[in-house]
Amino acid sequence: MYDLLKGLRVVEGSAFVAGPTCGLYLAQLGAEVIRFDNIGGGPDFRRWPLTPGGDSLYWEGLNKAKKSIAIDLGRPEGRELAQRLAAAPGEQGGVFVTNFPVEGFLSYEKLSALRPDLICARVMGWADGRPAVDYTVNSAVGVPLMNGHPDDPRPVNNVLPAWDLLTGAYAAFALVAAISARQRDGQGREIRIPLSDVAASTMANLGYLAESLGGQDRPRIGNDLFGAFGRDFVLKGGRRIMLVAITARQWRTLLQVLEIEAEVGAVEAELGVDFAGHEGLRFDHRARLLPLFETAFAAKTLEDLLPSFEREGVCWGPYQHMSAAAEDPRLVKGNPMFSDILHPSGATYPAPGFAGTIPQQARGPARPAARLGQHTDEVLSEVLGLSSGEIAQLHDKGVVAGPGGR
Amino acid sequence: MYDLLKGLRVVEGSAFVAGPTCGLYLAQLGAEVIRFDNIGGGPDFRRWPLTPGGDSLYWEGLNKAKKSIAIDLGRPEGRELAQRLAAAPGEQGGVFVTNFPVEGFLSYEKLSALRPDLICARVMGWADGRPAVDYTVNSAVGVPLMNGHPDDPRPVNNVLPAWDLLTGAYAAFALVAAISARQRDGQGREIRIPLSDVAASTMANLGYLAESLGGQDRPRIGNDLFGAFGRDFVLKGGRRIMLVAITARQWRTLLQVLEIEAEVGAVEAELGVDFAGHEGLRFDHRARLLPLFETAFAAKTLEDLLPSFEREGVCWGPYQHMSAAAEDPRLVKGNPMFSDILHPSGATYPAPGFAGTIPQQARGPARPAARLGQHTDEVLSEVLGLSSGEIAQLHDKGVVAGPGGR
Repeated sequence: MYDLLKGLRVVEGSAFVAGPTCGLYLAQLGAEVIRFDNIGGGPDFRRWPLTPGGDSLYWEGLNKAKKSIAIDLGRPEGRELAQRLAAAPGEQGGVFVTNFPVEGFLSYEKLSALRPDLICARVMGWADGRPAVDYTVNSAVGVPLMNGHPDDPRPVNNVLPAWDLLTGAYAAFALVAAISARQRDGQGREIRIPLSDVAASTMANLGYLAESLGGQDRPRIGNDLFGAFGRDFVLKGGRRIMLVAITARQWRTLLQVLEIEAEVGAVEAELGVDFAGHEGLRFDHRARLLPLFETAFAAKTLEDLLPSFEREGVCWGPYQHMSAAAEDPRLVKGNPMFSDILHPSGATYPAPGFAGTIPQQARGPARPAARLGQHTDEVLSEVLGLSSGEIAQLHDKGVVAGPGGR
Repeated sequence: MYDLLKGLRVVEGSAFVAGPTCGLYLAQLGAEVIRFDNIGGGPDFRRWPLTPGGDSLYWEGLNKAKKSIAIDLGRPEGRELAQRLAAAPGEQGGVFVTNFPVEGFLSYEKLSALRPDLICARVMGWADGRPAVDYTVNSAVGVPLMNGHPDDPRPVNNVLPAWDLLTGAYAAFALVAAISARQRDGQGREIRIPLSDVAASTMANLGYLAESLGGQDRPRIGNDLFGAFGRDFVLKGGRRIMLVAITARQWRTLLQVLEIEAEVGAVEAELGVDFAGHEGLRFDHRARLLPLFETAFAAKTLEDLLPSFEREGVCWGPYQHMSAAAEDPRLVKGNPMFSDILHPSGATYPAPGFAGTIPQQARGPARPAARLGQHTDEVLSEVLGLSSGEIAQLHDKGVVAGPGGR
């Protein structure tokens, strides 16, 4: 946690991954992020994985460091409260993150009537408003037809919801940029960010679109790195590692560490090529190269290789399950990004703050998600200026609820 | 292209995906982004995919809308020029994006000596400075052991470099946040963002870490959606679609469209469960449910289903290659995010701008990447204030080069 966005007040009305990730990133840089949800929880409140007691580890992971207010969004009074929150007053307020539909009670038109300089980042599925999620967009841009091994024609979805995550970060970026523009020109803006546009633009940015227009869809190549040298290898003792050599230096170092310079040199002489100078040739001729590496790796354990890997800066990573990653000092255990904190589920486990380090500043510990409705009264009072009598009345009428669900 | 960051001047000294993506996102919101490269190109200048003429579609995709200056970074005079650019003057300058090492001639210490309020976003591999790329970090957090079909034990890497992309967007977000903080407090900051921290924090945010600490690594489940209902299905005629039903409404609509309410109701009665109210139960009992869906889908073509899919808002996506996505009006063809532009390779093809829409503002067309060194003289003159005589001397000595490589 760092305080770069200190003073900023953001209201979030969203669910699932992209919108909540946007709010999470803002909170981890010090913004006050207030998430509103339906009483009893939004559509993501019971999303798997769950604790044995049925609390969502997913929900409490994606909503860390946010405040929570619970509102009955099915009733006109509740919807009006949500609108007033989205358009919250204050020079550093009026910033709203949502995945609610373009039309409806949280439309930009309705909200900007309350606050004309409102900034709204709206995550969408398809750009035309039709529903889409990460997995349906991913299949539409061709990724599952490229994932997987060439001997198996079945498409392979990504487990990791990459488009959701990218959209969340992109929305946070666009939102902070829009705030800086508002400081300059006083203008409100709605920024609509569809998963489908994020996916289509990314495939174009990486060259996949232009490649396909040339008549060539990328074939499935298993775990090989496209256009350079990289693949998974199994070591003596059975451990599997991912190994990458893109630059000339990485390539030369790798040959030296594996002591296969002579064998590779013989292939170069035979083919009349220079692998160090042309990473693409390593890919073209991988059928000749890979067996040399497989043999070399099969003769060494990770313990044999580690000293030279570390000394020479070989680019590699282990294949390991998340439970092993949790013990890896470079990832979780001992990583100052993580703090052991008590979560609303009642479990204590490591939680990350901002995904990086600012050496010039002190890092604050990660903060847990709120219990649903934990800040209902505080938000109504501090953000909307309601009196304790007005707040009590909203509770009595069931328009809002506190952490006990009432 | 939108102008939210108009006036901001960013210098980029980076290569591959994460750093260049950060610069690209800033440029697409109107910042002036100046990328410096070695004369002849950096380590990513020939990265695949290539045009038939050998130009990199990848490079020209990731460096759109940036200016280019070519400098001999192997010589002290060249390194000094790069340092002065990174620490460029001006109230909206002094913003640097890089993946150069923490130590070395582009260290924050060296650059902040030239400009104490410098903001630097530095993308790293491992947090300790050791080399890592997307694929080696991905294997280390367990994703390839979860990707793929349960009947095949081989790990499956993601083709999509999700960690690179997320890191790029996250760096752009953090950088804009640091600029807003500098406006407030005048302080410079280095923001170090390792791929490894982005990956580890994300796995924690999504609940994978907490789940594994409970003793359970996520098993491989093929193309099933974890914890709810979703999978790929083959339709009559052979087309494959991804289908997702998470909310109760999505679930009920889907049963209705497929006319399998009675069959599913019979399973519910037999098991004593309510699938609409508990998305997790749809996952638990998918072995019972999936055959009903497979049969229903095998009896209908996409043409049969489309009218009701569209009318009822079913959440689905086709499996299609990138070449088909290029023709899909919701993705590329006709999408106003794309403009047909001439690229430095000499090819004309659609290029995306900002991945979203701001209805209150006019959208500018996408802009192509520069030719390497295209803006060398302009940048030396406008940013560093060098005279034409000084610039000519740098060319003569081979310290800088223009678009012809000299």
